[in-house]
Amino acid sequence: MSPGNKGGAAGLPAAQLTLEGASVLHQMFDFDWAQWRSLDDPMRHRIATEARQWLARQEEAGSALFSMLGHKGDLMLVHFRKSFDELKAVELDLAQLELWGFLDQTASFLSMVELGLYESSVKLYASLAERGVEPYSEEWSREVEAALLRQREAMAPRLWPAIPERKYVCFYPMDRKRGGKDNWYALPIEERRRLMHEHGLTGRRWAGEVQQIITGSVGFDDWEWGVDLFADDPLVFKKLIYEMRYDEVSARFAVFGPFYVGLRVRAPQLEALLSGR
Amino acid sequence: MSPGNKGGAAGLPAAQLTLEGASVLHQMFDFDWAQWRSLDDPMRHRIATEARQWLARQEEAGSALFSMLGHKGDLMLVHFRKSFDELKAVELDLAQLELWGFLDQTASFLSMVELGLYESSVKLYASLAERGVEPYSEEWSREVEAALLRQREAMAPRLWPAIPERKYVCFYPMDRKRGGKDNWYALPIEERRRLMHEHGLTGRRWAGEVQQIITGSVGFDDWEWGVDLFADDPLVFKKLIYEMRYDEVSARFAVFGPFYVGLRVRAPQLEALLSGR
Amino acid sequence: MSPGNKGGAAGLPAAQLTLEGASVLHQMFDFDWAQWRSLDDPMRHRIATEARQWLARQEEAGSALFSMLGHKGDLMLVHFRKSFDELKAVELDLAQLELWGFLDQTASFLSMVELGLYESSVKLYASLAERGVEPYSEEWSREVEAALLRQREAMAPRLWPAIPERKYVCFYPMDRKRGGKDNWYALPIEERRRLMHEHGLTGRRWAGEVQQIITGSVGFDDWEWGVDLFADDPLVFKKLIYEMRYDEVSARFAVFGPFYVGLRVRAPQLEALLSGR
Amino acid sequence: MSPGNKGGAAGLPAAQLTLEGASVLHQMFDFDWAQWRSLDDPMRHRIATEARQWLARQEEAGSALFSMLGHKGDLMLVHFRKSFDELKAVELDLAQLELWGFLDQTASFLSMVELGLYESSVKLYASLAERGVEPYSEEWSREVEAALLRQREAMAPRLWPAIPERKYVCFYPMDRKRGGKDNWYALPIEERRRLMHEHGLTGRRWAGEVQQIITGSVGFDDWEWGVDLFADDPLVFKKLIYEMRYDEVSARFAVFGPFYVGLRVRAPQLEALLSGR
Amino acid sequence: MSPGNKGGAAGLPAAQLTLEGASVLHQMFDFDWAQWRSLDDPMRHRIATEARQWLARQEEAGSALFSMLGHKGDLMLVHFRKSFDELKAVELDLAQLELWGFLDQTASFLSMVELGLYESSVKLYASLAERGVEPYSEEWSREVEAALLRQREAMAPRLWPAIPERKYVCFYPMDRKRGGKDNWYALPIEERRRLMHEHGLTGRRWAGEVQQIITGSVGFDDWEWGVDLFADDPLVFKKLIYEMRYDEVSARFAVFGPFYVGLRVRAPQLEALLSGR
Repeated sequence: MSPGNKGGAAGLPAAQLTLEGASVLHQMFDFDWAQWRSLDDPMRHRIATEARQWLARQEEAGSALFSMLGHKGDLMLVHFRKSFDELKAVELDLAQLELWGFLDQTASFLSMVELGLYESSVKLYASLAERGVEPYSEEWSREVEAALLRQREAMAPRLWPAIPERKYVCFYPMDRKRGGKDNWYALPIEERRRLMHEHGLTGRRWAGEVQQIITGSVGFDDWEWGVDLFADDPLVFKKLIYEMRYDEVSARFAVFGPFYVGLRVRAPQLEALLSGR
Repeated sequence: MSPGNKGGAAGLPAAQLTLEGASVLHQMFDFDWAQWRSLDDPMRHRIATEARQWLARQEEAGSALFSMLGHKGDLMLVHFRKSFDELKAVELDLAQLELWGFLDQTASFLSMVELGLYESSVKLYASLAERGVEPYSEEWSREVEAALLRQREAMAPRLWPAIPERKYVCFYPMDRKRGGKDNWYALPIEERRRLMHEHGLTGRRWAGEVQQIITGSVGFDDWEWGVDLFADDPLVFKKLIYEMRYDEVSARFAVFGPFYVGLRVRAPQLEALLSGR
Repeated sequence: MSPGNKGGAAGLPAAQLTLEGASVLHQMFDFDWAQWRSLDDPMRHRIATEARQWLARQEEAGSALFSMLGHKGDLMLVHFRKSFDELKAVELDLAQLELWGFLDQTASFLSMVELGLYESSVKLYASLAERGVEPYSEEWSREVEAALLRQREAMAPRLWPAIPERKYVCFYPMDRKRGGKDNWYALPIEERRRLMHEHGLTGRRWAGEVQQIITGSVGFDDWEWGVDLFADDPLVFKKLIYEMRYDEVSARFAVFGPFYVGLRVRAPQLEALLSGR
Repeated sequence: MSPGNKGGAAGLPAAQLTLEGASVLHQMFDFDWAQWRSLDDPMRHRIATEARQWLARQEEAGSALFSMLGHKGDLMLVHFRKSFDELKAVELDLAQLELWGFLDQTASFLSMVELGLYESSVKLYASLAERGVEPYSEEWSREVEAALLRQREAMAPRLWPAIPERKYVCFYPMDRKRGGKDNWYALPIEERRRLMHEHGLTGRRWAGEVQQIITGSVGFDDWEWGVDLFADDPLVFKKLIYEMRYDEVSARFAVFGPFYVGLRVRAPQLEALLSGR
Repeated sequence: MSPGNKGGAAGLPAAQLTLEGASVLHQMFDFDWAQWRSLDDPMRHRIATEARQWLARQEEAGSALFSMLGHKGDLMLVHFRKSFDELKAVELDLAQLELWGFLDQTASFLSMVELGLYESSVKLYASLAERGVEPYSEEWSREVEAALLRQREAMAPRLWPAIPERKYVCFYPMDRKRGGKDNWYALPIEERRRLMHEHGLTGRRWAGEVQQIITGSVGFDDWEWGVDLFADDPLVFKKLIYEMRYDEVSARFAVFGPFYVGLRVRAPQLEALLSGR
């Protein structure tokens, strides 16, 4: 085996190019119903009103609230922002709400919207190799930067997405396996391109029923990627993910983290939710 | 190895067809006996009465309560419903009870009743392949949908089951192995069909003594399936599961989560249980 | 590889016969010394007296209390009973004691006393096979049931054991490995019989110094077996388990859970223990 | 592969002889500084004085206190005693101190000082084999017991060690791998002897700078051995353990648990430590 | 395979030489916002002032505070000191602040700045071998010590670094794999040198945009190394670590712990942070 940056079947660089967009933070919370219900009505109303107004402002800025199923959390907030600074600001801001005293943060996920450019990376790397341009040379880097710039503009809507207006969310983090018999990071880039292409075909069959946002978290969180799926029927999550599990890239190389499933709650519905409806 | 949706010994699609029915939520709870016994009798009676009436209504709607053995939880509630929305509603509703202040949720499991159609999938895929119908083409999908529709009607009683009227429950989640030497998701569909058939023969020998409900949780929870067994003698759980462990599908491919065992408690018995009897 | 119920070198059924006896529950607890010492003497005396009387009654019924070493728990209660119903009753009964408010349950283990009949299973299966009796046929099942009935009577004292009157206990749960290179559940029954026989020879050399009770927990708890050792010198636990670790069945196939070690405490000693002596 | 007690290249028994000495308990604690500082000075003084006097007595009996680095615990107590009974007594005694209310036990380790007699075991087993003495026969056991008795006397100072008077401690538990490709318990005793000998040579080069006490915990705790290192410069811990990691016995067979590092605190220094100095 | 201290392709010692510098402690904390906001303004101001003055003094001494993203901690303190004694002193000192009552320590990491001298070790070991100097002989050790002394002086600035003045930090611990197919500690030193050299080339391409400090924690903490990255754009963390993951040394041998990402906060900004800004 001889991977590394000089690896690849045709001696191409190993890492495909990626584009990054919005900074994203997922926050999962338990809600302390017993303590909440021990308050009198006016106090609950005051706290809920403050929280509703805050949520309405954050929705404008790229956040969404979900009411989650199961014991891993009652609520999930997802924030799409311009930078980590803005994410930190929204974290701090939330902690100043009176509602914060009833929230217990059980999990989080920090990442950036990511588009993996397998197809164009292989094409570009191969064309540069053919022209004898040394990988990572000044010329090589200039051409790569120019290509990224073009793609970044073309793909701006996908890099800075609005949160899809669907009823249900499914979020999970994942890794690709390293070490052992099935080592994703030791495959040549052309082989990974082929596997991702096949994987994309499965996804495409479900494109009408589910919207997907992939975020990258290498260097940011304990898993390598986060996947958010949005749909109007939760059965679609099961059907899509089950079918994909037989794709070679999932069967051999995927490691999945915890799954979080919930229903979208918009600011005007928050007070009803906090009344248990 | 060449799995993926175009895989299979005869080029059949990899994922067998499945039918989904009831949305299901398992909730496990510790009960705070010390705090509960610190209340006076009338207060305990009032709270228990509210809980009993709530449970009676939920039993009508498809729920059951179990008194569990061991430290993983004192109580388990299982809810069978029409949708995830109804499951969320019952979660919220429970949290409004006064009893909620004495419950600490330790675990949960979110899934849907699932029937895996291995036999008919292989037959249908093969017949479509013989007729030259391209997988996932419009015609292919139409025929598959038609087949699913027929089966869904025929199997409605198993898709929307009543909770069996047995004294004991055994619940556990499970996965099939991916990666490494024994990779379930890299086997051709015909081979999985054969292994599941053999597994079914073991199960059939126990059919009179135990009732089983399989729920699928891919995309919903951290394990791929949940298994609920219901019997009037708990020894049957041990005998059945031990015998099955030697089936090739379990010996090579099964990964088991925590096991939960308990006794059914119906609404009229709840107040006695809360008195420690 | 071709295991499964039709497997075995001579086509014998894979699962050996087992006999089950007493239902067993292990409960581990932390004790809140700081809160306990904050009570005044008369209150402590009253609570300790109630607990002592309760323990004396449970000892009659098949329970034992141990004072444990290390942070995994201060106390361990082991209950041997006729059924899971009786185990649930003792669990509930304990939670009604005033002492319960000072106990924090950290672990538990639910199982049944189990005798694995490797020798007689292989003999019986082989003789039935020779006579051409189809496995799991009506005749086969009748003969197996008859054999089990005879053994159950002969082995009643080992199936319904008294808790040995030794000073120290060592308890640990364990599994046999599945999947990968060393897969216990894929071995033919004759091979497992041979390995268990060799293992038994090691155990026999220690028979005078240690008493052992094996309980099975497949379908009941997260490990497959529990092992309780009782001895008057704790060094024996170390010597025996270390020597056994070189038996092929342990070296290749055993997975061990947490180890719990403690000293027997009888009811009349309970109040001294609760005074820190 | 054919290990087990009849295994070994020359058919020697598999388990080397061991000698056991002092019973040892490690206890790790968090200290609740916020609650402690909320007390007034006289109360803190009274509690600290009681604790100091207790510690002075325990130091006489074979205990030592360490102030630990990092979040895994503020304090570690190590007790060397004659028996598990004495360890349980010191555990109970500590819990009666007023200081106990400020301690939260986060971990512990139960073991006995152990000397592994690889060299003399192989020699003795081989000589007995040559003379045709059947392993585990009466004669064999008599000769083994006699050899152990001689060694036990010769090695008494190492079996019942004083806690070394060094400034820093490093404690960690460890296992040897079982199962898979690198299975320590499936190696012949001569091969293990060779690997341990090589390992010993590395250790010997550091003998002047570090004192080591090995304790065995098979049957007592969740790891097989505990290692205590004592030195006057903590860098020695890093140098020694890093160098040893390349010994074949560590590279292929060692599994390490959590590492605990701290500074010795003697009774007269305890009140200063509790004042945050 | 024959590693160990006599291993290496040319019989060179296995462990490369290392230089150690500053003692380093990372501390991660949750901050209790609800309790904090329940204080009145003057009390908050008094506590924040004390904390700010303390932080200003520690910054002088080699500490830095970071405001972290996600649920793994609100704050991270990193301390670079001369010795473990000084680290323990700063730990104790922090616990005496009034702010301590609002901090819950969730994690920590204890290590020393480490420079791995692969290139010069191989050169020196080879030259000594050529000259027939026996490894670990007196002469060998004298020459090695002399070489280390020269390097220690030359590399003092890297051994005792100031905390880089960048806006963002990324910290994670890591291991090299032992056992199984990919065993770092069983590779000859020349092979490890080659892999680390390749890895260094990837790092060098990012040298302008990110500053890296490697600390060694073998014998000190549960992982073998800690990596601190400092940059003015957090995207650089993702780009660098992702690209490195394809280096053979990472693809085959790296195991990563949790990732912590945050923003630098200097003493004068602390009160604003504690006001939620």
